[in-house]
Amino acid sequence: MNFHVALKKVVDDSYDIEIGYKLEDKLVEDIENGLVGEIRNFAIITDSIVEKLYAKNIVSLLKARNYKCDLFVFEAGEKSKTRKTKEVIEDAMLEKGYRRDCCIIAIGGGVVTDLAGFIAGTYGRGIPFINYSTTLLGAADASVGGKTAVDTELATNLIGLIYQPKKVYIDINTWTTLPRRQLSSGLCETIKHACIADKEFFKFIEDNIEKIFDFDKAICTHVAESNCRIKYEVVMKDEKENNLREILNLGHTVGRAIETVSDYKLLHGEALSIGIVAEVILGEKLGYVTLEEKERVINLLENCGLPIKIPSYINKEELVKKLYTDKKVRNGNIRFVFQKGIGSVMEFEGGKYATVISEEEIKKVIEVM
Amino acid sequence: MNFHVALKKVVDDSYDIEIGYKLEDKLVEDIENGLVGEIRNFAIITDSIVEKLYAKNIVSLLKARNYKCDLFVFEAGEKSKTRKTKEVIEDAMLEKGYRRDCCIIAIGGGVVTDLAGFIAGTYGRGIPFINYSTTLLGAADASVGGKTAVDTELATNLIGLIYQPKKVYIDINTWTTLPRRQLSSGLCETIKHACIADKEFFKFIEDNIEKIFDFDKAICTHVAESNCRIKYEVVMKDEKENNLREILNLGHTVGRAIETVSDYKLLHGEALSIGIVAEVILGEKLGYVTLEEKERVINLLENCGLPIKIPSYINKEELVKKLYTDKKVRNGNIRFVFQKGIGSVMEFEGGKYATVISEEEIKKVIEVM
Ligand SMILES: NC(=O)c1ccc[n+]([C@@H]2O[C@H](COP(=O)([O-])OP(=O)(O)OC[C@H]3O[C@@H](n4cnc5c(N)ncnc54)[C@H](O)[C@@H]3O)[C@@H](O)[C@H]2O)c1
Ligand SMILES: NC(=O)c1ccc[n+]([C@@H]2O[C@H](COP(=O)([O-])OP(=O)(O)OC[C@H]3O[C@@H](n4cnc5c(N)ncnc54)[C@H](O)[C@@H]3O)[C@@H](O)[C@H]2O)c1
Repeated sequence: MNFHVALKKVVDDSYDIEIGYKLEDKLVEDIENGLVGEIRNFAIITDSIVEKLYAKNIVSLLKARNYKCDLFVFEAGEKSKTRKTKEVIEDAMLEKGYRRDCCIIAIGGGVVTDLAGFIAGTYGRGIPFINYSTTLLGAADASVGGKTAVDTELATNLIGLIYQPKKVYIDINTWTTLPRRQLSSGLCETIKHACIADKEFFKFIEDNIEKIFDFDKAICTHVAESNCRIKYEVVMKDEKENNLREILNLGHTVGRAIETVSDYKLLHGEALSIGIVAEVILGEKLGYVTLEEKERVINLLENCGLPIKIPSYINKEELVKKLYTDKKVRNGNIRFVFQKGIGSVMEFEGGKYATVISEEEIKKVIEVM
Repeated sequence: MNFHVALKKVVDDSYDIEIGYKLEDKLVEDIENGLVGEIRNFAIITDSIVEKLYAKNIVSLLKARNYKCDLFVFEAGEKSKTRKTKEVIEDAMLEKGYRRDCCIIAIGGGVVTDLAGFIAGTYGRGIPFINYSTTLLGAADASVGGKTAVDTELATNLIGLIYQPKKVYIDINTWTTLPRRQLSSGLCETIKHACIADKEFFKFIEDNIEKIFDFDKAICTHVAESNCRIKYEVVMKDEKENNLREILNLGHTVGRAIETVSDYKLLHGEALSIGIVAEVILGEKLGYVTLEEKERVINLLENCGLPIKIPSYINKEELVKKLYTDKKVRNGNIRFVFQKGIGSVMEFEGGKYATVISEEEIKKVIEVM
């Protein structure tokens, strides 16, 4: 016999992203105004660099309002984004008496928010969490979509959850302490967003590079907001229109491969930059972008301090091999997403956003880079 | 400025529980008919005892239909329900090439389904899973509610997820190989369900104990189905009516404490049985059940081969201390759920289903047991 378990229901995971300059007090104010209900216990998760810069201060602010509050700090860097770190933090939280009635605040870049979000999603089968994002990459990419994850030896970001925060704070003031390389790297996902979805925003970045690097409040706010909007639109439309999310992979076919082959000497955004250059060179050959558009994209990347050539230490044969491990590979074929001019993407037969490119074609492009 | 991420949507996690006798072929047939879509890769998770009894056979059946299929086996027992086992299985799955396009089939009791469900919920940020339940406890309790979890040194079932299976199979044939103690232990949650919600079902068990232990198909099907129905009704009503789920804790105040103090020499259902006896003794004193009802409950437990007295090796002082670590403790007060007669529960002031009982009262009851 069959017993039917009917579990259809309306779920509302909506949240706000607050973009501004120095948002520590606003965070505390929101908590006092019931952002996470009656909760008075806060586990603050951060990394060893952000701890000193921003997290300690937020802990003090919360303690001053008599919240129970402890810092859980791990060594900065992608290498910490593991199940082991998750376990160590969970045990420390248990040790300090955190049970189901607590909230996690993640303060840091994408590594911190990915890891802390994953912990929140499985601690007591799910406790609320808040993201206080301190990198441009966090603002550009990690704030929308609810993806949380850790890496394993055999795969990055494969173990994790979709789990939405209660609120995200993008504090532009924190960008001022970011190493220049990190800032440029974060900017690359921003440029990618402009390339696939917003011609005006592309122009806006071209016109305001200096102001971005000077942390002009209005300009940076617009950058953060446009990023969130573009990513959100893609993610939302994807729920109806299958595969649209794939366009976020622009530049990633070559980008991810080169990131790995560089043994992570290249930051993600730096590798992505080289990947976007490969994509527009191929795209121009195939007639998807004009010569002028190709050059605008490459110039913008370069003007933002991003690499546009394959570093000499990269083994090009190994790079080509690595392309076959890309997520987009189907039946042994390498596939690319292409922009259509600037601000739009190519759509291929059968509503697909990625199309097969022969190894030969790719090799030619890699040779000239 | 604020950017609003609107994520309100309808989610349908409904699934069927199929209750029957030898359901291996039905499982394979359902898969061939698209239970999990086009998926052709199946990771079978089981423990070292169930492996030989049932899992290997299911693997053969799937392989005969040309599905990719591997067994992932861990050492039987609650001690394996850890983050470590989760990690080992995830790595083995990655090693064998399982990516996002696979499905997990959990074959076993509550330990297997809790662990495998948790793995499914976080592998590739969530892959489908199917439960093939081989214990009465699984049928009684673990098949409804979507709770998955692992234990840590400091807390049981605290790290996990709510994650629903695509389908649950309750194969009564598998009960025939269960050790008698396990069968009795599983029956205790069944008796608990009858006590809180279904007087007729209570009588049904009283009248059919022998047939249950003889694995009469019709009788066992009714037992499994009533269990699912009662748990489902409580869980569903709880979504509207706060706290109703708490009634599932009947007998658990003393039960969980004694399970721990026995250092797990007592099975969960055995400890629960002693906990229910404590609850009806207290309940009779307080006028919630009659003397006759109290005796009916105690007799039924005893006739099912369950302990009704505190074993002599239990340190009673330690037991009383342990009561204060119960989840239901509020402001340092021990709280109990009480049945109202048979088949219903007491509701206390403010819509609460658990009420404070003084240490003194509890001690008196523990003394006479
Ligand atoms: N969840 C998603 O949707 C999503 C999207 C994109 C990337 N990611 C993940 O994000 C990670 C990369 O993000 P990231 O670049 O922010 O990494 P990160 O968190 O490691 O930050 C980069 C470095 O900058 C330091 N840092 C952070 N904020 C700082 C500040 N304000 N001042 C000075 N130093 C600061 C960090 O300590 C770290 O050393 C990857 O793990 C990636 O997988 C997730
Ligand atoms: N998810 C939930 O809602 C929920 C509810 C109740 C209990 N649980 C969990 O369930 C677990 C207890 O369940 P359990 O008693 O099924 O434990 P279990 O899975 O460990 O099974 C008990 C023992 O019986 C063996 N076994 C299983 N099926 C058998 C069969 N057909 N024949 C012979 N031997 C068999 C197992 O190998 C094991 O040694 C606990 O971890 C508990 O936390 C979960």
